[in-house]
Amino acid sequence: MRPLLLVVFTISILSLTPIPFLPPPTTSLIYNIFILYISPTLAYLIATLGIDGMREKLVGRGLYGMDIGKRGTEREKVKVPEALGVVTGISHVVVLSLTTYLCRTSTPPTLPILLSSLTSILFMLFLGFTDDVLEWGWTAKLVLPTVSSIPLVAVYDGSTSIVAPRFLHPLFWSSPNQVLTPLSEALSSLGMTVYPGSRIGLIDVGWVYGVYMSLLSIFTSNCINIYAGINGLEVGQSVVISCCILLHNAHEIAAGVESAAQHWFSAMVLLPFLTSSLALLKRNWYPAECFVGDTYCYSAGVVFAVVGIHGHFSKTLLLFFIPQIMNFLLSLPQLLKVVPCPRHRLPRYNKDTGKMEPSMYSLPNGGGGINLTLINVWLKLWGPRKEERLTLELLALQVAMSAVGMCIRYKGLGRGLIFEDEEL
Amino acid sequence: MRPLLLVVFTISILSLTPIPFLPPPTTSLIYNIFILYISPTLAYLIATLGIDGMREKLVGRGLYGMDIGKRGTEREKVKVPEALGVVTGISHVVVLSLTTYLCRTSTPPTLPILLSSLTSILFMLFLGFTDDVLEWGWTAKLVLPTVSSIPLVAVYDGSTSIVAPRFLHPLFWSSPNQVLTPLSEALSSLGMTVYPGSRIGLIDVGWVYGVYMSLLSIFTSNCINIYAGINGLEVGQSVVISCCILLHNAHEIAAGVESAAQHWFSAMVLLPFLTSSLALLKRNWYPAECFVGDTYCYSAGVVFAVVGIHGHFSKTLLLFFIPQIMNFLLSLPQLLKVVPCPRHRLPRYNKDTGKMEPSMYSLPNGGGGINLTLINVWLKLWGPRKEERLTLELLALQVAMSAVGMCIRYKGLGRGLIFEDEEL
Repeated sequence: MRPLLLVVFTISILSLTPIPFLPPPTTSLIYNIFILYISPTLAYLIATLGIDGMREKLVGRGLYGMDIGKRGTEREKVKVPEALGVVTGISHVVVLSLTTYLCRTSTPPTLPILLSSLTSILFMLFLGFTDDVLEWGWTAKLVLPTVSSIPLVAVYDGSTSIVAPRFLHPLFWSSPNQVLTPLSEALSSLGMTVYPGSRIGLIDVGWVYGVYMSLLSIFTSNCINIYAGINGLEVGQSVVISCCILLHNAHEIAAGVESAAQHWFSAMVLLPFLTSSLALLKRNWYPAECFVGDTYCYSAGVVFAVVGIHGHFSKTLLLFFIPQIMNFLLSLPQLLKVVPCPRHRLPRYNKDTGKMEPSMYSLPNGGGGINLTLINVWLKLWGPRKEERLTLELLALQVAMSAVGMCIRYKGLGRGLIFEDEEL
Repeated sequence: MRPLLLVVFTISILSLTPIPFLPPPTTSLIYNIFILYISPTLAYLIATLGIDGMREKLVGRGLYGMDIGKRGTEREKVKVPEALGVVTGISHVVVLSLTTYLCRTSTPPTLPILLSSLTSILFMLFLGFTDDVLEWGWTAKLVLPTVSSIPLVAVYDGSTSIVAPRFLHPLFWSSPNQVLTPLSEALSSLGMTVYPGSRIGLIDVGWVYGVYMSLLSIFTSNCINIYAGINGLEVGQSVVISCCILLHNAHEIAAGVESAAQHWFSAMVLLPFLTSSLALLKRNWYPAECFVGDTYCYSAGVVFAVVGIHGHFSKTLLLFFIPQIMNFLLSLPQLLKVVPCPRHRLPRYNKDTGKMEPSMYSLPNGGGGINLTLINVWLKLWGPRKEERLTLELLALQVAMSAVGMCIRYKGLGRGLIFEDEEL
């Protein structure tokens, strides 16, 4: 059923279609042509050639794995090359490096922003690949992404104000004149500013916003890595998220928002990422001819953090991560070791039925339960199914949840609660 | 004779001593304290802890080598962890990432320059580590460093003019009135500017300067990698070069040159690099308890290219690379396969004498000769010697050649030939 992959491809290409019809980001023709056409094409070509060229080399150097989801079939013993994310990563950073040269005279200046993005992406690529080879401990997995987000925070030039949710307003402003409360006075001594008389509930959180950006970057890097384990899911979800962000960018640019330049920046970083991911998806789709590795998961996560932060739409970004957030919350008891956490939590292949079933953890007293991941819960809810169908259903869930996210963003469902204005 | 290592340490520390007495780079006290004291200390501590923590992990993951220079001794079978440059690299980029945050408001703005440097260093670290694991071909080793230098070129804000050597002046200016020659007219159609009437011989080479910077970056990355193979030489030469550059920076800042800010930038990048290298040298000194890997050689090379380019002293930089240039020129026949090139060219250990001897290549007709490296030529010239003594002598050569380089730079030996003014 490999042709089903065409569905994913078609949706991706459709998400790109509005972009060429939008007002161009600058007056330089070569710059626009590069961003819209050359850079995505180049990234796709480098990734395609690189993946085919590197597969044997990776196996030869011991970077391979057996597909646990194929146990009991004749594919069980096939050495599947691992960490192919290194190739898509290289194709992405090579194209972005070329972009820096074109950006050096752009107005408004995007060069520092692009350089800080490249720094963070390269840092996470390096971290991801060393993790694939050396297997870092949890400390390194939390500390290094934090450090890698510092350059992003250092060049962040957007607002550091947030809109407090309505039900929290009484904490900061005493009605009826929106006078500051003692709590607000206390906050100001910590470097934050609660604006007196603000009707929408504006608070400049200052350095706390930097902490938030770091946390966002840690979250997006790790949440893709733990929502994984079946063929095509890691890349598939990244492709869906990229398409949603690109559609959001296209919508905002077409609507002529003030922050159009930031949305163009997001498209500039995402387009080559999307096309190189598509090249990887072709080989990672069921039955996988290669694995993507932590290299891909980490670098994909940080790409989303980068565009969310520098595109000034980090809250909207999280609306496209609903399944990842659900999976993270579900996983918390196992991540925090409240419930035993086996090394692998991916579903179990039943060779008699040819279908995937939820995998279990066992307690010392003989009890146990299903491993707490969205994949296992999905299998528990709807019954065992074949691996390819499972991937497709989870990607459909990703699309459906992103649609819900878009409704929250555009149809005013979140207005007054989270968003007054995305800029704030 | 490990105490001899103290010599190298002492010289390194001495090279740092003038720096704290120089005029501070900006008015922010915390920034100065961070650059001069905290950042080098932090890099040293992270590297020291990291090296000891990672050694077993690297061996466990198959990243180790046997020391070819110990064949026939009881050390022959010891698994020496490889690619420890990954640890010094991480300590360096972590410290530089922290520095980006302090630089975000500095005057003049150093943030874009620092970010482009971080990008290049990370790119080469990633390339180096993937090379240690995957062993790239020659194409990748030339193309990827070129790409990694693009961000450096993109933010380069210095002059792109060079001073033509005196004996070439008649090619560009016809005497006696320094009128442009037809060649100069032709160059201007290629985007270069030969200044009419220029007495010192000024030519603005424009984009060609970008090509030069890329080539410099490729050269420095690879030349350390091919001047290697005996315990402590890769890190030792990098430590000596760093010390020479720091002394040059200190001299220029103390002399109050216009480009003092650029020299401060160079010190900011080099200080943590030097201290993390010293931490590595302790373990890599004879008998080596770890190898540094291509990761270290590439990242050290690009660090020097970065400070040379952004410090605006790229020609002076090359004066500290005389042994590397000699080794490169010597190696050319073998690199270009005019003469057969075996996989390893490092000298051979003679277990009877306990000394190193030149290694040989063999021709199909039974002939042969010594492998064309500076190390082998040194052994041929002065006879076999113990590995530790060999390293110390080659490092002494590095110091002596750098002293010659400094004379060329400061005592006017190169004036009129290469330098009129370092800025040009």
